[in-house]
Parts: sequence; structure tokens; C-alpha cells
Amino acid sequence: MLGLMQEWPLLCHKIIDHAARQNPAREIVSRSVEGPIVRMTYADLNIRSRKVAERLAREGCVPGDRIATLAWNTGRHLECWYGAMGMGGVYHTLNPRLFPDQIAWIMRHAEDGFLFCDLTFMPIVEKIAPSVPSLRRIVVLTDEAHLPQSPLPGLVAYETWLAEADGDFRWLELDENTAAGMCYTSGTTGEPKGVLYSHRSNVLHAMMACMPDAMGISSRDVVLPVVPMFHANAWGLGQSAPMVGAKLVMPGGKMDGASIYELLDTEKVTFSAAVPTVWLMLLQHLEETGKTLPHLRKVVIGGSACPRVMIRKFEENYGVEVVHAWGMTEMSPLGTLCTLKPECDGLDAEGKLDIRQKQGWAPFGVEMKITDDADVERPWDGATFGRLKVRGPAVARAYYGGAGGEQFDAAGWFDTGDVAHIDAGGYMQITDRAKDVIKSGGEWISTIDLENIAVGHPDVAEAAAIGVPHAKWDERPLLVVVRKAGRNVEKKALLDFMAGKVARWWIPDDVAFVDEIPHTATGKIQKSVLRERFRDYRLPADRA
Amino acid sequence: MLGLMQEWPLLCHKIIDHAARQNPAREIVSRSVEGPIVRMTYADLNIRSRKVAERLAREGCVPGDRIATLAWNTGRHLECWYGAMGMGGVYHTLNPRLFPDQIAWIMRHAEDGFLFCDLTFMPIVEKIAPSVPSLRRIVVLTDEAHLPQSPLPGLVAYETWLAEADGDFRWLELDENTAAGMCYTSGTTGEPKGVLYSHRSNVLHAMMACMPDAMGISSRDVVLPVVPMFHANAWGLGQSAPMVGAKLVMPGGKMDGASIYELLDTEKVTFSAAVPTVWLMLLQHLEETGKTLPHLRKVVIGGSACPRVMIRKFEENYGVEVVHAWGMTEMSPLGTLCTLKPECDGLDAEGKLDIRQKQGWAPFGVEMKITDDADVERPWDGATFGRLKVRGPAVARAYYGGAGGEQFDAAGWFDTGDVAHIDAGGYMQITDRAKDVIKSGGEWISTIDLENIAVGHPDVAEAAAIGVPHAKWDERPLLVVVRKAGRNVEKKALLDFMAGKVARWWIPDDVAFVDEIPHTATGKIQKSVLRERFRDYRLPADRA
Repeated sequence: MLGLMQEWPLLCHKIIDHAARQNPAREIVSRSVEGPIVRMTYADLNIRSRKVAERLAREGCVPGDRIATLAWNTGRHLECWYGAMGMGGVYHTLNPRLFPDQIAWIMRHAEDGFLFCDLTFMPIVEKIAPSVPSLRRIVVLTDEAHLPQSPLPGLVAYETWLAEADGDFRWLELDENTAAGMCYTSGTTGEPKGVLYSHRSNVLHAMMACMPDAMGISSRDVVLPVVPMFHANAWGLGQSAPMVGAKLVMPGGKMDGASIYELLDTEKVTFSAAVPTVWLMLLQHLEETGKTLPHLRKVVIGGSACPRVMIRKFEENYGVEVVHAWGMTEMSPLGTLCTLKPECDGLDAEGKLDIRQKQGWAPFGVEMKITDDADVERPWDGATFGRLKVRGPAVARAYYGGAGGEQFDAAGWFDTGDVAHIDAGGYMQITDRAKDVIKSGGEWISTIDLENIAVGHPDVAEAAAIGVPHAKWDERPLLVVVRKAGRNVEKKALLDFMAGKVARWWIPDDVAFVDEIPHTATGKIQKSVLRERFRDYRLPADRA
Repeated sequence: MLGLMQEWPLLCHKIIDHAARQNPAREIVSRSVEGPIVRMTYADLNIRSRKVAERLAREGCVPGDRIATLAWNTGRHLECWYGAMGMGGVYHTLNPRLFPDQIAWIMRHAEDGFLFCDLTFMPIVEKIAPSVPSLRRIVVLTDEAHLPQSPLPGLVAYETWLAEADGDFRWLELDENTAAGMCYTSGTTGEPKGVLYSHRSNVLHAMMACMPDAMGISSRDVVLPVVPMFHANAWGLGQSAPMVGAKLVMPGGKMDGASIYELLDTEKVTFSAAVPTVWLMLLQHLEETGKTLPHLRKVVIGGSACPRVMIRKFEENYGVEVVHAWGMTEMSPLGTLCTLKPECDGLDAEGKLDIRQKQGWAPFGVEMKITDDADVERPWDGATFGRLKVRGPAVARAYYGGAGGEQFDAAGWFDTGDVAHIDAGGYMQITDRAKDVIKSGGEWISTIDLENIAVGHPDVAEAAAIGVPHAKWDERPLLVVVRKAGRNVEKKALLDFMAGKVARWWIPDDVAFVDEIPHTATGKIQKSVLRERFRDYRLPADRA
């Protein structure tokens, strides 16, 4: 027997219809790419998004078309998202930090027909456009006065293009499983893989994100998404902020400490989200200027593990709550957020920091488990680690075009590629990437733990632990270390320093001192390159 | 093109699976019907609900079966809900405050096959069971020691019945639109009408309810649902509290001031929800005893309009935020909640009270409009009122068995039967029931406004405004008044008191003083009875 409740599909444009009805005058403030701070309201967003939809339809876009964006966080970028979705199209965020060849590859794979781009990225667009045959139209997110000279044919200024719309577009009535958005993950290995969000997954993800134990934003918040819309959907804030009617502050292309501080201060931002690097710049700016954060109440920090000292500074020096978070493009992206449960109330300040350093716990709508190599579940005891697998309505079940199918199993679990442990209170902590974990005699050693301890030594600038072949144990850890300039710690002193901080059998068999450790474009250590370089390395015990 | 996100149906038992995983040790504390305070955890709730499902299945219950409950708010009642839903059944809450004949009528209409009932209600059950032919089994929510003597055949104690389960039941994989729960509305006219919730509507409603601008509960809250589970699903708290992992405190059958205060105090309740009558009893208890509310941070007040003095007392005397709310059984039940938006920050204390007295604004997932008699939308200006119509994923699209079809239109709007205005900020205020509104020369007069002003007169105990026939204006207001004992206000003085407080043409044409105004079982004024009584009443201007 079915219930007798309304069929009310979960569609993204209902979010901005709701915003325009219930919070019409709330502002979206943007640092424009042209320079000045510009303002609009949710009522404006609704009208302008309808105009985008109308103009796209008039250009011949049809439901299912991929509409790419190469743009900073601005109100215009948000209009393009909602306009694309509202006419049945799929917004496709491109990451300008990739190499132009990679961007072009992704656009060809997605068969993008349309591109909205910021002025900043014109040099990239001029490079890639000729090699993307599907691309029919490029609209530059600016007005006529700022439209640059360009060899590209048919370039048009967004404001001119938009002004041709009547504004009477009616959103399409769509199945809630219709594709709404697209984002490619740029893994450290292999080709990029496309994640295809649906209206339903975006709406449910936004609802999950707003819950008090997750981001917990309300109509009273002023939300500054520093995390880019091209980086895993700005962690969903482009949907969750209008859903609750929060004022939005968009940083445009300026993410340095002074620029972010200016917005935090003048717009009285209460909530922000960014990767640790951005917060590091802000904290440095605050320390240099002696400024404070009287309005900010909460920051979400994710993208990579948040250093303990950063959590401490925010909380102790500035009275700002830090919510450490973890997610993936494949998860829309939120997976876990680290808010304190009542069980933590009895902990002292350091004990609470221990918890806050974990990646956190899952809101309703994210299921987690950790498994061994045979896919058997491991216990939630805060020590046993295993491959982290997730399931939920905002988790991918496949990549666009069928790539990477081995990450999805028949019961719907997605293998995150991370290794983690989860404690009895539900708090998850990432201990490694699955491909980086060192398997010594069938037991797993966490390279992240080894690296964190090694960089605690005053002479160490950077450290990477990798597994190298071992006759008896299959693999044993080798620690690759960059010394700080002018320092000269040696192997024995470093290993002695590590002793007692992890199990004895975790202690690396050897230390290799190098001048530099290779990194990806986004700053992650390229362990695959290191493993290749040390493939034939003979560990001391094996040498004899 | 469809998205590539997981099929993860929104099913109610996923809520308690999530609770058992992420907040396993959080408590559900109940004042048991037998007397003592009893405790369980979300891990226990999950296991015991699976046992209920297993036992129901063993009794021959199949998906779609209606499983009735006649019970107070307790952990056991909650287990019965989740157990019924998890095996594909439909929990059906019966309201013990109805007359036994009405309950029996409802059970026959729903064709309930199973009944869980509290000890308190055995006298009712003994009366109605013989006249409900579909009823196959009655389980009394108690243990063997407390099972009463009864002429009913096959009566069994819940704990004995439950102990026969193995506890290895696997939840059914269901379509998310499967019926999950049922509740009949007892309108003031006509037969009761059944609302049939689905898993999807229950889950989405719970997510909406948890949003910070709605109930805003988190894992850190201690939630006391005083509003009964048989009264519009305890406003969804049976789903939203486990969804976020909030500790639950269930009041059982004791709703008097002292009993509620005891739970608020000993369990450190932070959040509660109830109708104004309950809060009146609590406030009286506090005033008599001089006690305070140091833990309570928020109360949701709904079911009928919340008096201004109650909001003031909670906020000024006890530091508790009042969230005035409005909803209907047909809406799962939440419609609007009155939390303050940033635009209200500039208001003084009285201005904020003016806002808080409104029924509030809608979370994402509730669409509202107000229309005139021709179904044309009226503006949101805070003055123009119209019939309030709603739409959303947790709003009914029909009643069970097809009754009351005239309340649902083709575009999916449900006519609430209320009359309201909505201001530019989105705040809705109920001004009348549609059937009570007085139509004078085509214009509408709000009877609630007239009554509120009349009862402000020191000599008036109660007042009801009704429309009576008028030769020129079709209808004009008659004010029916009960004087306070020993007071003797007359017509002219009362109408003079009202002058200037509403438009001149709203002032009643006459006042009828009576000894008593008729009420329904739930305390609402029976205007239909009054209108019948004054059907032939001749107003002064018409008399001449």
C-alpha cells in the first residue's frame, strides 16, 4: 500500500523559489571579478536565473545538455547554476587550477556545449576552446564595457546576453532523478572521472548540510563560501544557503588573508568554509594586524586534514568554533563533520581537541563502514582501521561514462579509497589513503600517523612514509625526509624521537633524506612518484 | 539524462539504524504507564523495534496492514511505530480523547488488524474491540506482572510477546512511497478523515523539522515531546529526535505541571513541544513553587494560537525562546514556525512579540499561498487575507478512502480551511477558519481578531464572533459573550471598547450575552452550534 502524500519532486529550482518567497530581500554580496563589491537579493537571483534558463533554451540548449562554468564564487556563477538546472541542463564546474590540456580533455569527455567563464580565465579559454568540438557558445561573465578583445569567435558579454531575456521562463517540471550538475575528480592517478549529481541528490544533500550537527546554518547566518564552487560544489553552500535564506557573501577571485578579512568584517560574516591553506593565510593576516573576528561564529575546515594548532588558534584566540569535515566529490561532497556530542562534555580542552582533529561523524543520509581486504566489516573501536566505504542518496553510484566501476559494489557501497578508524561514539578519523597504507606481514601501518610524528621533530620540514618491498614482511616502512634548512638530524635520532609514539613494529626500517618531496598541483604529496623512485630500495635488514 | 547518484530510498527504519550507529548510547527516558521512570538507548530502540517487526510478521501481519496504537508517549510506543513500519506495516495512532464510538468507527474504517494499547486505555479497548471485526490481536504495552484481568480474549503482555523474538529481523527493502503511518483528523464537522503518511514524507518531514530555523534540534538536545504521538505524530519528534541523535524524554500519561517540571529538571531537558494548555499548567506550577527553568532553551507551542502573555512569560521570566508554530495532521504536521529573521533585529521587545504571535514562516518543503474565493492569489502584505493553501512532499494529496476530495486541487494545493495573511517577510498569521469568516458585502471579517479584542475587556470571560444573515450586507458580525462572574458590561460599553482597534465596518452589529459557549472535546469553540442557535437572529438595523 502506498501513502497518500503529494508528489513533490525534489528539484533544485524549488530552493530558489523558496528563497525568493520566504527571504526575498536577503542579500547575495559578491566581490566581482571586475573589482567592486556588488549586491543582489534572493528575489533577484530567482529572476536572473530564470533569464539564464530562458536564454539557454533560446540558444538551443535542451534538457541534458552540459553547461560548463569556469568561474569564481559570485552571484553570477550561482545564477548560471540555477538557470542551467531549471531548464533541465547540467551545470558542469571546471577547475581552473588544472592544466589547460586536462580541462580540454574533461570538456571533450563531458561534451560541454556551452561555457560561462570569468574574465580571469580568458587565457585558458582561448587555449582550450579550439580543441573542444562540442562547444557551441562562450559567454563571458561580465558586462559589455569589460568584454575583452579576443580571437575567439562569437564571444558575448553575459549582461548583454541576459538583457535579451523576458524573464517569464517557467521552470521545467522534471523527474527528481534528472541530472543537475557535474564535477570531475582529478585523482592522483588515471584520467579524471565525472560525477553526475541529480536534483534529488543536491536537494537532499543541502538538507543534510543544514542540520544543526552538520553545518547548522540558518536565515540568521551570513555565509562566506571561500571553498570554490568548482571544488566539489562549494561543499553544497550554493544550495544550502538559499534553502535556509542565509545571506551569501561570495569572495570572487580574491582568497588572500586581507581580502577575506575585509569581507568577514564589512559583511559581518558568521559562517565560513574553506581548506586549511586559506585559513592559514587569514590567521597570518590576523596575527600581523592584530585584528579580531567578532562576528564569525563557525568555520568548516576540510579538503585536507586540519592541523591541531589551527583549531586551537581559532577557538582560543578568536572564539570561533571549528568544524573539521571530510567528504569527496563523489559524496556531493559532505561525508562527516566533527561537532561535539554531549559525551565529549566531560573532556578537558586537550581531550576536546583530540576529538576535533578527527574528521567527525555522519549526518543522517550518510552510511559508513570500514572493512578489511576481504570486505568483512571491522569494529568501531577507534583503533582498528579499514577501508572506508559509504552509501547514501547523495553518493555516486557510477562515474559518467562508466569509468572506475571497481569503486562501486553490488550493495551500493562506494569505496572512498581512504583508510580510517571509527570510535564507539561514531567519530571517524582518516588514517591513510588505501593505496598508500603499508602492509607489513598482513597488518596495516598508517603512513599519515608516521608522517605526523616525524614532522613533529624540530629539524624536519616534511616527511613521507612509503612501503618498500621486504623479503620477510612483504613491505616495510621507509621514511623519506626533507630537513629544515641548516638542520642535520640523522636517522637514529629521528627514529629514537618516534619510538614510543607508535607501536614498535610501525617504526620505519630506514630513513632517506632528500632535498625535495614531489607534490601534485593541489599540494598533495605524490606518493606514487616516491614509490617509483624507491622501488628498488634495499632496506638495511634486507641488505645484509 | 538522469544523474548517477545512489538509489537510497528514504525509509523510516534508516532513521533508527542511523541513531543506533551514530548515537548508540543516547537515552530514551520514559515515564512508564506503570509508574517508574525507565531508560533505554537508541541501540536498544533499534533491537526492540526489529523484535516488534519480527513478532508482527510471525502473527501474520503483511505489508500494508494497519497496526493501531492507543498509547501515551513512551519508548515502547516508539518501538511499535518503527517495528510496524520496518515490516511494511502502517502504524495508526488512535486518539483516546475521542468518544469510544468514534474510535471504533475509525478503526473499522482503517480496518486495523492489530492493536497495541496502554493499561490506561483498557476500559476503552474493552468497549470498542467487539465492534471492530478486523481486529485480530491486542497487545497490552506492559509486562506479565501488570497484565490486567479482562473479558477480552487472547490478551497478551507486550514484554512477554516481545521476548519470543530472536531479534534478527532484517528491515524490508521498500519503495519510499510505501505507506508508513496513519492518523485521522477529527474535524468539527463530518466524519473523521484518514491521512496516510509515507516513508518518504515522514523522512523528509523529519529533515525539514530539524533545520535550524524550524525546530533546530541536535545531538546535544534533550527533547521532551509533551504533544502526544496520537496528536499529529508528536509533531514529528518521534522521527526527528532519533534522526539527529537527541536524547528523548517521554512523559507517559502525566502532563500536569509538576510532572512535566520533574522531567524538565531531572533530565535537563533543553527542548520541548506542546499545546498552550500544557504550558499554562507548567507556568502556573512554576509561579506557585518559585521554580525556574535553567536547562530549557526552547519550546515550540502550537495546536492553537499561543497567547502573547505566555510568550512573554517564557522569554522574560524564564529565558526560554518560544517558537510559535502552526500545522495540520494533513501536513505531517509542520507548516510554519515562528523564528526571528535578521530583519526583526531592529524591533523592540513589543515589536518582536508582535512577530512571535504570528504562526511563522515555512521551511523549505512547505509552499504556501493565500487566495480569494475565485482561487486568485492575494498579495503578501501582512494585511490582505485569503484562504491558506499549501503544497509539499509531506502534505496529503488525498484522504484514505477518498473522503474530502474537495480540499485538494489539480495543481496539488491543499486547502487548509484556514484564513490567513502573510507579510512581505514571509510571516503567516491565521486570522480565521474559512468556515467561520464573516463575509460582509463581499469583504471578509476575521472573527479571531474580534474575539481577541473582546476578551481584552476586563469583564469578558469568553467571546465568539459569528456571521448572521443581513438583508443588505449578506452577513454581519454578532458577538456572543460570556461575562466574568459578577461583572455586568453592556453592549454599548463593549463596542465602544472595541472601537478604534479594528476597521469601523468590522465592529459587530450586536452583542448577545450568554451563560455558556459550547466547546468541542478538544476545547475549541463550536461555532457551527452557535451559528445554528442564532440562525434566525435579527440584528438591530434589520429589526426596524
